[in-house]
Amino acid sequence: MKKLRLGDIGLGQRGAQLVKEVFVEHESVVITAICDSYEDRVEDAAKVITDAGHPEPFKTTNYKEVLSKDKVDCVVVAASWNKHIDMTVECLEAGIPCGCEIGGVETLDECFKLVEAYERTKTPFMFMENCCYGRREMMALNMAKLGVFGTLVHCSGGYHHDLRSEVANGKELRHYRLNEYLTRNCENYPTHEIGPIAQVLDINRGNRFVSLTSTASKSVGLHEYILEKKPDDKELVDATFAQGDIVTTVIKCERGETITITLDTTLPRYYSRGFTVRGTKGMYEEFTDSVFIDGEVSDEDHAEWKTQWGNADRYAEKYEHDVWKKFLADGVHGGHGGMDYLVYSEFFDCVINNKPMPIDAYDAAAWMCITPLSEKSIAAGGAPMEIPDFKNLK
Amino acid sequence: MKKLRLGDIGLGQRGAQLVKEVFVEHESVVITAICDSYEDRVEDAAKVITDAGHPEPFKTTNYKEVLSKDKVDCVVVAASWNKHIDMTVECLEAGIPCGCEIGGVETLDECFKLVEAYERTKTPFMFMENCCYGRREMMALNMAKLGVFGTLVHCSGGYHHDLRSEVANGKELRHYRLNEYLTRNCENYPTHEIGPIAQVLDINRGNRFVSLTSTASKSVGLHEYILEKKPDDKELVDATFAQGDIVTTVIKCERGETITITLDTTLPRYYSRGFTVRGTKGMYEEFTDSVFIDGEVSDEDHAEWKTQWGNADRYAEKYEHDVWKKFLADGVHGGHGGMDYLVYSEFFDCVINNKPMPIDAYDAAAWMCITPLSEKSIAAGGAPMEIPDFKNLK
Repeated sequence: MKKLRLGDIGLGQRGAQLVKEVFVEHESVVITAICDSYEDRVEDAAKVITDAGHPEPFKTTNYKEVLSKDKVDCVVVAASWNKHIDMTVECLEAGIPCGCEIGGVETLDECFKLVEAYERTKTPFMFMENCCYGRREMMALNMAKLGVFGTLVHCSGGYHHDLRSEVANGKELRHYRLNEYLTRNCENYPTHEIGPIAQVLDINRGNRFVSLTSTASKSVGLHEYILEKKPDDKELVDATFAQGDIVTTVIKCERGETITITLDTTLPRYYSRGFTVRGTKGMYEEFTDSVFIDGEVSDEDHAEWKTQWGNADRYAEKYEHDVWKKFLADGVHGGHGGMDYLVYSEFFDCVINNKPMPIDAYDAAAWMCITPLSEKSIAAGGAPMEIPDFKNLK
Repeated sequence: MKKLRLGDIGLGQRGAQLVKEVFVEHESVVITAICDSYEDRVEDAAKVITDAGHPEPFKTTNYKEVLSKDKVDCVVVAASWNKHIDMTVECLEAGIPCGCEIGGVETLDECFKLVEAYERTKTPFMFMENCCYGRREMMALNMAKLGVFGTLVHCSGGYHHDLRSEVANGKELRHYRLNEYLTRNCENYPTHEIGPIAQVLDINRGNRFVSLTSTASKSVGLHEYILEKKPDDKELVDATFAQGDIVTTVIKCERGETITITLDTTLPRYYSRGFTVRGTKGMYEEFTDSVFIDGEVSDEDHAEWKTQWGNADRYAEKYEHDVWKKFLADGVHGGHGGMDYLVYSEFFDCVINNKPMPIDAYDAAAWMCITPLSEKSIAAGGAPMEIPDFKNLK
C-alpha cells in the first residue's frame, strides 16, 4: 500500500511531539513537508525524521509552500490558536485534506469561515480531538449508545491541567498561551471534554448546542506562581493576567440536556478531564473512575462510594469500545496513552479510503465557538449567549 | 445545670429523626412541646420521648401554641420549605430563640422578612445547616483559615442524592417535596454545600455573593422512575414534573471567587456533597477524598491521581478541626454521622450562654435566596441575577 505523503504545519510543542511519537512510526504516512515560523524547530523535526530512517522532508518557514499537491497528499495543522483556522481554510481551498489540531478560536467568525470553506470546497477535513479516542471516553460512549445509562440528561468535564509553568515560561518556550492568558478571559480550551461529550449527546447528529453561560473567577494563580518562581522576570511580575483561574461554562442542548465544562489550568492540582455522563439508568464518572448502574448498587455503597472507586475496570470487560479492544490486543502505542495514534489513524484511514471524517467542520465549529462565546458571556456578567446552528446556517 | 426546655415544630422525616437521634439523648435539653399538623406524628414523637424516659411533652397541631415562654426556652422549626420562615419569624417575634432547619425558601421576600424580623427583635436565631459540621468540611475550613490552600479562588459542591423514591412516594410519605418537584424548577436545596462553602469564603464576614446564573436540564428522571416503579399511580404517571433533573448554579463573590453548585436528586447515583475547595497553593476534593498541596506531589501522582485517592485521612492527622478532634475522642454520636449532634450542641450552647450564633439570619438569607433567584434565572434562560447584600439592606 502506498503511504500518504504528509505535511506538518506547526512544530511547536504539539507538532514536534506528533512528529516524534506518531508520524515517524505510523505505517500509513511518510512526512514529506514540514513547516514552522522558527527555523530551528524545522531543523529539529527534520533530524527526528531522518534519524528515524526516513528521507529528509521539504523544509520551510512559509506554510503556503506546503500547500501543494506536488508535495503532500494531506496536511496536519498544529499551529497556534490564532492562526490554525486561517491555515486550515487555505489548505481546504488548495484541495488538500486537512487535519486541524485543537484549541479555541479567536473569533466566532473563524467558525463560520471554516464551515463556509468546507461547504464550498468539500475538501476532507477532520478536527483532531484526541480525547474522543480516550479509553474511558470511548467506553462511556459505547455504553451510552447501548442505552446502559438510559435517557441521557447531563454531562460534565473539564480541562483540569496545571499549566502554570508552561504559561509563565511562555517567552522561553515561545508558547502562544502566555499571550492568550495575558489578554483574554474565556474558556480557551473546551474541546478535550466537549468533544467526547458532543459525541455522547449526538451533537450535529440530531441534537445541538443551543446556548451557554460562562463565569470566570479572579486571576491570581499565575501571578502568585510568577512571584514565587520567576521573581526576577520584571515584565511578568508586573503583568496583569486577563484569564480567570477557573472558568465555568454551562451549555444547554436542543434535546434538553445540560453540560458543565470547566477550564482549570492555573492552580495546583492533578490532571483530569473530569468526564462524566449522567442518565436515567446510570452514570460514568472519571474522578472516581466508576460506573453506577441503577439497581446494581447496595445501600451501603450508595451511601459510601469509596468501595466502588475504580470499578470501571470491571465494566470494561463488558463495555470496552471495539476500537480499544483491538488496540489493547495489538499493543497500545503513540502519544498521550495511545489517543494520538488512534485519532491520526482514523484521519489517515479516511483520507486513504475516501471515507467521511468522524469529526468534521461542523463539529469543529460547534466545539470551538465556545471560546469566543464564553468570552462574550464573561464580559457580559454571565449573560447567556446563543450558539449558532452550524449545520443550518442561512 | 438546668436543661433548656425545647419545643419542636414539625415532626416529618427530619423533625422525627431529630427527636429520636438527637434531642431525647442530648444532655442540654428536655423536649417540653411538640407540634405537627398531623396528629399521628405528634403521638409517635411523644411516644419516642416517653419511651426514652422523659416526661410527656405538651402536644399540639397548632404551632402557635408552642410559641410561649411558659412552655419553652427555645424552638426548633423543622417544618416544610413553604412554611418554615413564617413560623421562624413568629418565633422571633415571640422572643423565643429559634433554630430553623434547612431547605430553600419559596420567595426572595421571605429572606427579607427573616432579616427584618431578626434586626427588629434581636431574638437569637440559628440556621441549622448540619453539613457545616461535617468532618471533612470542617477540616477543609480549618486548612483554608490556616492558609494551607493559599488564596482561595473557587469552590464547588452539590446535593447529589437520589431522592426519586422519596419524591415519587410523596403522597404516601406526606412529603412536601413531591409538590415542590411538580410545580417548581430551581436549585431547591442549596445549603448543604453552600453553607460550608460560605464559611470557607467568609461570606457575610468581608465577602458576599454578588450574582448567580442557573441552568436546568430536562426533567425525565422522576417520570421514568414512576413508569417503572409505580405504573398504577395514574395521577403520577400522567404528571409533568417542573423540576429539572440537574440544576447547575454558578455564583460570583465580591472578592472574585466563583462557586459552582449542583442540584442532583432525581437520577441514579451515589450520595455525595462533592465539596471542593481550590486555592493557589492546594485543594481538597470530596469525590476522591483527597488533598493536593502544591510542591508535595510527584509527577506520577500529578498525572495519575488514583494512588492518592483517600489521602485526606493522612492530612486529618495534622488538620482535623478542633471540634472534630474532641468529638472523635469523646465518641461520635447523633444523626447523620454526628453532624446533627454537633450543630444542635452549638445552638443549645449559644442559647444557654447567650453567645452569638455562628450561622445567623444574614447567612440563612444569603444561602436560601439562591432558591428563588435560581428559579428566576432558569426561567430567564440562564440570565444572571443579582444577590442582595442582606447585611446592608437599605
